[in-house]
Amino acid sequence: MKKIINTPERFIPEMLEGIYAAHPDDLTFAEGDLHCLVTKQKQAGKVGIATGGGSGHLPLFLGYVGKGMLDGCSIGDVFQSPSAEQMLAVTKEIDQGAGVLYIYGNYNGDIFNFDMAAEMADMEEDIRVESVVAGEDVASAGPTAEGEPNKRRGVAGIFFVYKCAGAAAAAGKSLDEVKAVAEKTCANVRTMGVALTSCTVPRVGHPSFEIGDDEMEIGMGIHGEPGIRRGKLVPADEIVDEMMEPILKDIPYRAGDEVAVLINGLGATPLEEQYVMFRRVKQILDEKGISVWHTYVGEYATSMEMAGASVSLLRLDDELKGWLAAPADTPFFKQFQL
Amino acid sequence: MKKIINTPERFIPEMLEGIYAAHPDDLTFAEGDLHCLVTKQKQAGKVGIATGGGSGHLPLFLGYVGKGMLDGCSIGDVFQSPSAEQMLAVTKEIDQGAGVLYIYGNYNGDIFNFDMAAEMADMEEDIRVESVVAGEDVASAGPTAEGEPNKRRGVAGIFFVYKCAGAAAAAGKSLDEVKAVAEKTCANVRTMGVALTSCTVPRVGHPSFEIGDDEMEIGMGIHGEPGIRRGKLVPADEIVDEMMEPILKDIPYRAGDEVAVLINGLGATPLEEQYVMFRRVKQILDEKGISVWHTYVGEYATSMEMAGASVSLLRLDDELKGWLAAPADTPFFKQFQL
Repeated sequence: MKKIINTPERFIPEMLEGIYAAHPDDLTFAEGDLHCLVTKQKQAGKVGIATGGGSGHLPLFLGYVGKGMLDGCSIGDVFQSPSAEQMLAVTKEIDQGAGVLYIYGNYNGDIFNFDMAAEMADMEEDIRVESVVAGEDVASAGPTAEGEPNKRRGVAGIFFVYKCAGAAAAAGKSLDEVKAVAEKTCANVRTMGVALTSCTVPRVGHPSFEIGDDEMEIGMGIHGEPGIRRGKLVPADEIVDEMMEPILKDIPYRAGDEVAVLINGLGATPLEEQYVMFRRVKQILDEKGISVWHTYVGEYATSMEMAGASVSLLRLDDELKGWLAAPADTPFFKQFQL
Repeated sequence: MKKIINTPERFIPEMLEGIYAAHPDDLTFAEGDLHCLVTKQKQAGKVGIATGGGSGHLPLFLGYVGKGMLDGCSIGDVFQSPSAEQMLAVTKEIDQGAGVLYIYGNYNGDIFNFDMAAEMADMEEDIRVESVVAGEDVASAGPTAEGEPNKRRGVAGIFFVYKCAGAAAAAGKSLDEVKAVAEKTCANVRTMGVALTSCTVPRVGHPSFEIGDDEMEIGMGIHGEPGIRRGKLVPADEIVDEMMEPILKDIPYRAGDEVAVLINGLGATPLEEQYVMFRRVKQILDEKGISVWHTYVGEYATSMEMAGASVSLLRLDDELKGWLAAPADTPFFKQFQL
């Protein structure tokens, strides 16, 4: 295990100490617990948005707390859900009377704890909480049937949900309206990933899974959840073709659509390779008559030092374009008005 | 070699195609050559700033072309200098009558070609060009004696030179004034790095150097140039202590100084670990009575998939604070007014 850490036990607390030390004007924590991160840049009276989840995915989740995006984030140990009490502490800190929206990824531990936190917020604190669970990884399950729960994992596409819902909240929309924006974004975003190497959870000390020196796994999740196909590493264009096919047919995205694209590096895959991937994504979208309205390339949701990447598409209408175009200023994501 | 590319030969041209496709409103290229990247966001009449160098270091060098920073960048193949002709093409495109400043890292190939380009610009195009060569890696050579050439490599600290000189140019300063800002920034920035793994140049196909599974190399350069000590990997705090000592004593940085800090990931080292490093940097600076005015953490100058990081300190006065605080908006670096 080759990491710049002190001990596995101190990894996340020390990371958090580093984050608060680096961003003293922007971030602080609630109830004396480093794991309960909240913004210092409060905007009076607006709907609060909280997220949370395990560590090891920076800038996910806490990196999007700031102006125009989120207000707080509860943080667990590596790949571990934070507790309901930590989520509640964040909720209390960020509520300004307009209620709080939880936006988080579709993982059982997080759902269990966020649901409990929402109940405690309602019963004990009289804070109205609504929840949107993001799950857009087309590799992880089939499309959701009417009335059925979504079984798909939430991965990098949650960035778009934060961005659009965050902009709506910053614009003074009500809790129901912000929730509707988050749900609409979820309904229009799809993601597929590919992994080339594993990462190592510090407390475990060995790679989360084995993968051959010449292998890749299409559709693997950000904690190493099984993908849809493992095989020999092939050229970039073939990888992208294989990722794009199930994404495009899922909603489906159609000729005439406008989309935002997110190429997300999982950790060890250089920006150079991410742009090689985008080149092919753009070619495919051009062929299909789908136009790219805006592009994001970089590390938005990682698995520490895992090599690999994901592609997310967000189908846009005028409303979502407006939210996506709004400015944002967080420690990890900054955008001027588009 | 585990990379998401098509072929080694097409790696950089395809990366560049991806970059132009992703940022169509911001970036274009001169004289039909993808390697001659220039901004589309021209600010009339200002001093042009050009950089250049080998590929494989994104966001260096081209990522800082945009509002408030650079105007153009010539790009070579992986770790290879672009040609003098490519530098000249960029120079011609970005000159608006106020002259052009070259800011680049202290590498022989780049110096040779930039000097030739400057001469051609002067002789053939009547464009006045000045040059500032950044070299702040304290591991690479001793301090520069009066009147001697700087033998130090330029690494991540060049980000600060781009930022400050770019802000001065955007503010309408003259070529001599912008050059003075760049030189002042160079004089006040120092860097030290550590490498944990090698990267692989695609055309070579095997790692640039061997390093044991339990080893690190303090002071290694971003192309794998030898560092000052190879040894067993030690805890993060010890690594940072060993990096900070030669940085601090070099200028030297003293009690009462204010600095900006840049923790730069070399590629595969996660943001989490970079924040663990910053935590220790802050502790050391606190002990020394040096205050941190602003902090940057992330990937600013990489070596593709190399694991490791560097620490840069920039000593600030009111002038440099003003330039650092100015807004910037490039595809890879965005900052609202601090």
